[in-house]
Amino acid sequence: MSKDGPVSPLAPTHFPDLPAIAGLEAAIGRAGFYKHDRPDLLVLRAPLGTKAAGVFTTNAVGSAPTDWCKQALAVTRGGTRGLLVNAGCANSFTGPDGDAACKRSLEAAAAKLGLEAREMLVASTGVIGVVLDDAKIARALPDMKLAPLDWPSAAAAIMTTDTFPKGAGATCEIDGVRVNIAGIAKGSGMIAPNMATMLAFVFTDAALSAPILKTLLREENETSFNSITVDGDRSTNDCVLLFATGQAKVSPIPDAKDPRLEGFRAALSRVLVDLAIQIVRDGEGATKLVTVNVDGAVNDASAKLIARTICESPLVKTAIAGEDANWGRIVMAIGRSDQPQQRDMISVRFGDLWAAKNGMVSPDYDEVRMSAYMKRQELDISVTVGPGQGKARMYTCDLTKRYVEINGDYRS
Amino acid sequence: MSKDGPVSPLAPTHFPDLPAIAGLEAAIGRAGFYKHDRPDLLVLRAPLGTKAAGVFTTNAVGSAPTDWCKQALAVTRGGTRGLLVNAGCANSFTGPDGDAACKRSLEAAAAKLGLEAREMLVASTGVIGVVLDDAKIARALPDMKLAPLDWPSAAAAIMTTDTFPKGAGATCEIDGVRVNIAGIAKGSGMIAPNMATMLAFVFTDAALSAPILKTLLREENETSFNSITVDGDRSTNDCVLLFATGQAKVSPIPDAKDPRLEGFRAALSRVLVDLAIQIVRDGEGATKLVTVNVDGAVNDASAKLIARTICESPLVKTAIAGEDANWGRIVMAIGRSDQPQQRDMISVRFGDLWAAKNGMVSPDYDEVRMSAYMKRQELDISVTVGPGQGKARMYTCDLTKRYVEINGDYRS
Repeated sequence: MSKDGPVSPLAPTHFPDLPAIAGLEAAIGRAGFYKHDRPDLLVLRAPLGTKAAGVFTTNAVGSAPTDWCKQALAVTRGGTRGLLVNAGCANSFTGPDGDAACKRSLEAAAAKLGLEAREMLVASTGVIGVVLDDAKIARALPDMKLAPLDWPSAAAAIMTTDTFPKGAGATCEIDGVRVNIAGIAKGSGMIAPNMATMLAFVFTDAALSAPILKTLLREENETSFNSITVDGDRSTNDCVLLFATGQAKVSPIPDAKDPRLEGFRAALSRVLVDLAIQIVRDGEGATKLVTVNVDGAVNDASAKLIARTICESPLVKTAIAGEDANWGRIVMAIGRSDQPQQRDMISVRFGDLWAAKNGMVSPDYDEVRMSAYMKRQELDISVTVGPGQGKARMYTCDLTKRYVEINGDYRS
Repeated sequence: MSKDGPVSPLAPTHFPDLPAIAGLEAAIGRAGFYKHDRPDLLVLRAPLGTKAAGVFTTNAVGSAPTDWCKQALAVTRGGTRGLLVNAGCANSFTGPDGDAACKRSLEAAAAKLGLEAREMLVASTGVIGVVLDDAKIARALPDMKLAPLDWPSAAAAIMTTDTFPKGAGATCEIDGVRVNIAGIAKGSGMIAPNMATMLAFVFTDAALSAPILKTLLREENETSFNSITVDGDRSTNDCVLLFATGQAKVSPIPDAKDPRLEGFRAALSRVLVDLAIQIVRDGEGATKLVTVNVDGAVNDASAKLIARTICESPLVKTAIAGEDANWGRIVMAIGRSDQPQQRDMISVRFGDLWAAKNGMVSPDYDEVRMSAYMKRQELDISVTVGPGQGKARMYTCDLTKRYVEINGDYRS
């Protein structure tokens, strides 16, 4: 656990029981990157035949680790066997020195796992602009013992300012064969679509090709990790990696559109959305989990931009922190989204309570009931913005003094 | 003065001496819109022959007052004689009822001033979604006494959460004739380009046509009010109005490109930038005034988007509040701006101190000197993002716990 502060009030009561993914091994250790004395290093080995795919931050600055992953996945066509994750040093904006340090760290980890560096993926989060001190990793590796993957320890080893470890799992069938999915994630601040300082590693034992994994991950990522925002800041290091070990033998699936994948796709979506919402629950300083639904937009993309403007408005977020049903600020945010809308059709609902209907305050607006609703820990805000068919859902949290406190002295 | 809290630590030491604009009369009073017991109503009369122009919020929701102004300016071709301002009720998102209330309030004010309603402009700020109770205005008007405009009282009467009244003035010459410019503004939160919950009313005695005023205002607005951001939220009610009374007779100027306007344009720019920066100085909870300069972008518009992303990043703003030179977050913000950039040419400077040079931490980075710099009340952050010619400057403030506090219970 982080020693940065108390566990989020929105945290789940316990780490879930996750299905085992046969053949996954991991070792955790302390390299000394993270400021508090706890594990900050994870290496993981997947069985022969594992395929992987990833989605990465669109932040133009990027980082040595995300650059490495993109290249390695291309070179090996998804033929990945290992993963190295450190918490505390992002190794972003570090130029050729950062790239070289990243490569050396992967060579050291690959040697330990009996793999080649190009079979490894890597993820780092932490302070931007500091070159990775890979010697710390080389020193830590010898004492780290590989053992069957223990989900809670692995989830804890990748945390930075996170206040709880995050995991989610599901089982489903592909063509009559039982298949498991399990994943872990980290993320708390610098969270926004495309993407945040978040990492997620999801594993399945299904035998699926790298192109199928890539398609499924891209598509299901849109409604999960690309639908959360804590502060609108999008980090240099984010990635979601999906690994399929192939231990659960299913008859070959030619492409991602195959109807036999329906159940798997739904289960994958549940895992990704679950992990994504856990990241919002651990939003820095968060005291409220807020789901924002938008409908009536000209299309889904427009609806998502409106949802995002609401989710990222500091005035909406502070009002929610103050348990104030200041729906006028939601109207303001809709108006400033620069998306098509019809003012006299705008409606705003908190849960089942109407705040505004058709461009004005709702005739049955009830401040007392509204105030009572705002005291809940989980809030639903639904808005209609016009007559269109476009809709979207996003997840966010409130903006509290604690967020300011956490981020005012992150480096010290 | 507002009773919402202490005066901003960034406030000027005193209200400036502003030049008189001959013939302007005003009356202030209390209609009872604003929650604290202080003047919240201003009516103003300008001499016969006055011309006016305005720029308005681009928030799609807008408000009854901004709708009125746009229509009145069109109908009268800038032939405006009066202004009504109330603080405490935005009259936005109030449908036909709000429009009717706005019109009635203008008819009452026009009657008092001996004008017609269409010669009046109007501006309101405050809570969104509440229909203006124009009866309060009708009741307050009879006791309000017209007198030559007193700038500090007028500036105070339009405040809402502002902690100090804002004014700026300049004198210049047009074609050898001495000309005065003076203006007042309000604004503190919901401040962003295009525009914020801000109002500004600027007056000159120069004889200038409405089309010239409109062109000059639009152009100079870009580098002043459209270059500040407190929280990225853009209100429904913002406007900047520019009035020219024509009392300082200058020979007719055919258009805004006339070289004889050079001095006037520069003076107008100074007044607008001064008022705009005062709004940032009164940013809710602000303890630091930050100027962000971007160069090397592909063009000025791109530079401005990058500057804005830096200015609105919660992580940059909280780091500044914490006096932490967390330049990695500035790099992150550049990267997430989605604007063209060259990572290995990115440089970041705080004042004269280099934090990053050419895609890496600066070789002469000095944490001690940097920390000392961060303790200043006014900070300059300059970034280079590539080899281009595009540049921009924006102004913002830090994000503090006090911002969260102020906005957590605004309505109560």
